Amino acid sequence: MSANSILQRARPHLLALHAYVPGLQPQEPGWIKLNTNENAYPPSPRVVEALQREIGADGASLRLYPSPTSAPLRAAVARRHGLKPENVCIGNGGDDILNLLVRCFCGPEVAGAWTVPSYSLYPVLIGLEGAPVQALEFERDLRLPVGGIVRSEAPICFLTTPNAPTGVGFAAEDLRAAIAGFRGLLVADETYAPFADSDIAGWVREFPNLCVTRSFSKSHCLAGQRIGYALAHPEVIDLLDRVRDSYNVSRLSQVAALAAFEDVGYYDGLVRTIRATRERFFRELTQRRGWFTYPSQTNFVFTEPRDAAGRAGPEVVKSFYDHLVANKILVRCFPSHPLTRNFARISIGTDEEMNVLGQTIDTWLQNAPPPSSAAPAKPTSS
Amino acid sequence: MSANSILQRARPHLLALHAYVPGLQPQEPGWIKLNTNENAYPPSPRVVEALQREIGADGASLRLYPSPTSAPLRAAVARRHGLKPENVCIGNGGDDILNLLVRCFCGPEVAGAWTVPSYSLYPVLIGLEGAPVQALEFERDLRLPVGGIVRSEAPICFLTTPNAPTGVGFAAEDLRAAIAGFRGLLVADETYAPFADSDIAGWVREFPNLCVTRSFSKSHCLAGQRIGYALAHPEVIDLLDRVRDSYNVSRLSQVAALAAFEDVGYYDGLVRTIRATRERFFRELTQRRGWFTYPSQTNFVFTEPRDAAGRAGPEVVKSFYDHLVANKILVRCFPSHPLTRNFARISIGTDEEMNVLGQTIDTWLQNAPPPSSAAPAKPTSS
Repeated sequence: MSANSILQRARPHLLALHAYVPGLQPQEPGWIKLNTNENAYPPSPRVVEALQREIGADGASLRLYPSPTSAPLRAAVARRHGLKPENVCIGNGGDDILNLLVRCFCGPEVAGAWTVPSYSLYPVLIGLEGAPVQALEFERDLRLPVGGIVRSEAPICFLTTPNAPTGVGFAAEDLRAAIAGFRGLLVADETYAPFADSDIAGWVREFPNLCVTRSFSKSHCLAGQRIGYALAHPEVIDLLDRVRDSYNVSRLSQVAALAAFEDVGYYDGLVRTIRATRERFFRELTQRRGWFTYPSQTNFVFTEPRDAAGRAGPEVVKSFYDHLVANKILVRCFPSHPLTRNFARISIGTDEEMNVLGQTIDTWLQNAPPPSSAAPAKPTSS
Repeated sequence: MSANSILQRARPHLLALHAYVPGLQPQEPGWIKLNTNENAYPPSPRVVEALQREIGADGASLRLYPSPTSAPLRAAVARRHGLKPENVCIGNGGDDILNLLVRCFCGPEVAGAWTVPSYSLYPVLIGLEGAPVQALEFERDLRLPVGGIVRSEAPICFLTTPNAPTGVGFAAEDLRAAIAGFRGLLVADETYAPFADSDIAGWVREFPNLCVTRSFSKSHCLAGQRIGYALAHPEVIDLLDRVRDSYNVSRLSQVAALAAFEDVGYYDGLVRTIRATRERFFRELTQRRGWFTYPSQTNFVFTEPRDAAGRAGPEVVKSFYDHLVANKILVRCFPSHPLTRNFARISIGTDEEMNVLGQTIDTWLQNAPPPSSAAPAKPTSS
């Protein structure tokens, strides 16, 4: 029997799909990594203490299965949001939660909807179920497409709030109108909400068709440990728990997340620091360089690089990106959509990292050969 | 909008399903846990060293995403089995791998097959895809049902080798005949193979329709850290990688697994110890107590308890189980199948734990009231 004949027995829609391509994760040191929105700072010292305590002298506890429901973490998350443990499901990263949601609601001929551009994993997950993907496009003003959401027949719709990769926050009245009007489960992916002025996690008490998702990757400096969660009506959580792997979150991840979550003071301080760096960098881009940049409610900015001749466009972005890589700085580009292809998404690093980036942008502007076919300079407005 | 109307938009087959029920995982100390086949010993000291090194003084590396492909671990696993990294996929526990396999091959109206009794998670995962479940039943001799496997039209068939919960190994010629004759992907779940006299991992080089799965939970004392892997033809691995979460295995889990995997001497020693305890306990059950017990190739035994009057049966097992629980000893029972309902599955603990268990069995035989409706004593043969 050949490998080919085995593949012919696999689900046909998978053979045509490509895996989601995550941002580059160089494992060797020396990079300034501003491409996947990791937190620039280490986790709370209490995380290290809690891990040391759990590992102990001989790591004996690691031989035992973890809590299948991540019970202590579930309880802590519920308390924080003024909810009950049955409103919470803990995932192996926020992506695990998103995957469970798609598997619960999408299937062959049952579409899932997403706002575009946002997190490009949503359509990949929907496609994995063999389901059609309904794209609800933003206009250039990046206001939430409330009309499209309310008119959608999909049983589930994903949006990122504040949005990624643009970084913009949505008006509360638009979010409320979308949730109230949508006839399926509206998933508000609040991965970046801890860096924003406001969030809607508490609305779960009011709307049974709202599921808020969160991640420990960005806000709690634990991207390496894969922890995220869903907040929703107990009936929705029960559904996720039916599909979830019994032991989806490791023992050390549960311990790290719980210790992080309880050190509110440390993380409040980090958020203040990151927001201050973000505002400084935003002013540098907009005021000093004159680059159009969306106001950010996240731990990154989305900016339209202009070369020394004042030109913007995909080739300018490519030249910008290549110059940074040559100087061991990683940022992220999104060339496949009209609203994103002229832009670079830059995570907020430490002040020192942002200074190095600023100097590297200076050398790009001084040294990079102008791209041959870049569009002429054209003022943009938002 | 009510929660009920949201659930009506979920995939209908999920509403009828129940989640897999894992074995009890009491989080408080004081239990002798012989119910979920965890290893009785702590992981290699190198695991602790590697975790300490990764965590460092401030846990800074935890803020960064892990290797999306678990690349160093993938390479180490490939080397060990004489395969290439493209023959290996690392999972968030063996269950993650099983889940991916089902999602790649089963769908509505596309059944998955499993040998019964074996790991009861297989039919749960198949059911989650809305797929029919084909059960291939063992006879009392517990030989692999080769005829049933070869005649099956399913695109995928799961078996556990050595088997669980019975602990028996299969004849190599039966395994070979099943793989050679089956027209789909045969998944040989080798979770317990490190405790057996032989394994078939190397057969992956020969059979493109064989996928061998392994776990670090039992053999490497890392149930808490959720690591497992698949060995298969590169085309099958490519398929799993398309469906797999990009960052499915945490940073500390990758580090722990790699350190464990490379300390061959430590784990060879553990396997010798566990096998010696197993043989002693097997003799105690069969020779001293006269309980029918299948010869075990795993880190547990499957035995048919007999009460003081020599009676066996589901009620005797229940009395046995309840007496152990009352003495803070957990074992596992499988009351839903004729081949398993008279039996208890007992993980091999330390010699000290097995001595306590032996004494507790003595007090059960001395003190437990005989069950009212137990079947009369009946000799069994295998």
